[in-house]
Amino acid sequence: MKIAIVAPSCTLKRAAAEQVEAIAAARGDCELAIHPQCFLSEGHFAGTDQQRLDALREVMADETVDAIWFARGGYGSNRIAEQLLTDVPSGAHRKLYLGYSDAGFLLAGLHRAGLRVAHGPMPQDVTRIDGEAAVQRALDWLVRRDPSALEPHLTRPAYAFNLTVLSCLLGTPLEPDFSGAELLIEEVSEHHYRIDRLMFHVTASANVRSARQLRLGRVDDVPENDPDFGHDELAIVEDWCARSGIRFGGRAAVGHDAGNRVVPFGSNWD
Amino acid sequence: MKIAIVAPSCTLKRAAAEQVEAIAAARGDCELAIHPQCFLSEGHFAGTDQQRLDALREVMADETVDAIWFARGGYGSNRIAEQLLTDVPSGAHRKLYLGYSDAGFLLAGLHRAGLRVAHGPMPQDVTRIDGEAAVQRALDWLVRRDPSALEPHLTRPAYAFNLTVLSCLLGTPLEPDFSGAELLIEEVSEHHYRIDRLMFHVTASANVRSARQLRLGRVDDVPENDPDFGHDELAIVEDWCARSGIRFGGRAAVGHDAGNRVVPFGSNWD
Repeated sequence: MKIAIVAPSCTLKRAAAEQVEAIAAARGDCELAIHPQCFLSEGHFAGTDQQRLDALREVMADETVDAIWFARGGYGSNRIAEQLLTDVPSGAHRKLYLGYSDAGFLLAGLHRAGLRVAHGPMPQDVTRIDGEAAVQRALDWLVRRDPSALEPHLTRPAYAFNLTVLSCLLGTPLEPDFSGAELLIEEVSEHHYRIDRLMFHVTASANVRSARQLRLGRVDDVPENDPDFGHDELAIVEDWCARSGIRFGGRAAVGHDAGNRVVPFGSNWD
Repeated sequence: MKIAIVAPSCTLKRAAAEQVEAIAAARGDCELAIHPQCFLSEGHFAGTDQQRLDALREVMADETVDAIWFARGGYGSNRIAEQLLTDVPSGAHRKLYLGYSDAGFLLAGLHRAGLRVAHGPMPQDVTRIDGEAAVQRALDWLVRRDPSALEPHLTRPAYAFNLTVLSCLLGTPLEPDFSGAELLIEEVSEHHYRIDRLMFHVTASANVRSARQLRLGRVDDVPENDPDFGHDELAIVEDWCARSGIRFGGRAAVGHDAGNRVVPFGSNWD
């Protein structure tokens, strides 16, 4: 299995790339092709919009590539997602696509275009505490669709998003159809008052309200709220689900950490 | 003229209240009625949702009150806006409503309900550098609809919002109709990458695209982007206007500072 790594958002760290290559070499069941675009730097991004778009189109069109793994999050994949979808390369449909965080913009758009995508760990996660486990889990899923890599209580159809990314793709051409689906959310580095505001926005959406249920992943590195917000992320999410008539289904094993499990989008998990 | 001050978001500082009362007393052309709810504290907010809603309903229903001035921003007016609109007190329609930042959620909802609202300085602004000028400008507009208080290049119909608030009210029952309007935006304390993401979201909206033009107010206290984003807020906003076919009309005199001018919503400015 040949897995291409591209960086539609921010620059991949060299050390992370080397660690992930060593893990794949030790496994011996897959070949990683880290595109040189991953190491470009143009302001906030891993190269210009055109360079990031070209690299992604190139690996999507490459007949020798079986899966495309987004290198890391940060910010920027939304800037190329719509243009990408105006002309999806032939050969792109038989591949798998994996990532999360900012890559959620691409997951949403590619899923809408009929491609097989999943929310799950990325190469740069190797730098996290116990990060190798996240990389092994991602490869277990990409190489042999290992069910133990999946979020353990998942029911189809399913979607998972970073909450900020979800808020910012509502109303755009990237927005998925959540009707009857299970929707998992996670967040990192946002104050409780911002999580509350995002939940107000997201749960006002008729599309989100058409979901079968919403589950809350981990909410990590919450900056101090001054004064204390008065409610934690669980209470906030339960409150907005109750206000909006969305069933709250409990916690989920997704998040910006090494325990992040795989969530294939929609019903096409195989 | 009797002006009631309530705090639908966060707690008003006592010192700010005293300074604003002294300014009004020296003017001698208006009476301020600072509702005790302004000084309540419940977690992040100036009292519970019910306390903030009750105080706002009370002054909206009070026949002796001519104008309602929102004490300050922060976060939280969205949590009571929809419930407020289910039962607007009689007498509320002859009053003026003034505020900005988080109060934008209420401005939007009250405007949709047919009330006369404007985006402009709030009592807590007195604590800013040269803050007294902002308070005098707000009172000049509330008391005698002084045209020199207005944003100087305004054309009707007009709207002004904090960019984050605008992003979070799109798709909610608070969203105004921007067709044919001039839309002014401002922002504070957001990284350039976040401003870029918000502009992606906001300019994808068909409603925002129906605006006659968009103008950019001040973007203050931008935290350092690591690495440097590569474009400033003007370039970011021009880029997303160009991508989405929205006319960019230049800069605007609104923002989280003492120079914040008044923008009455819609076409009903008198």
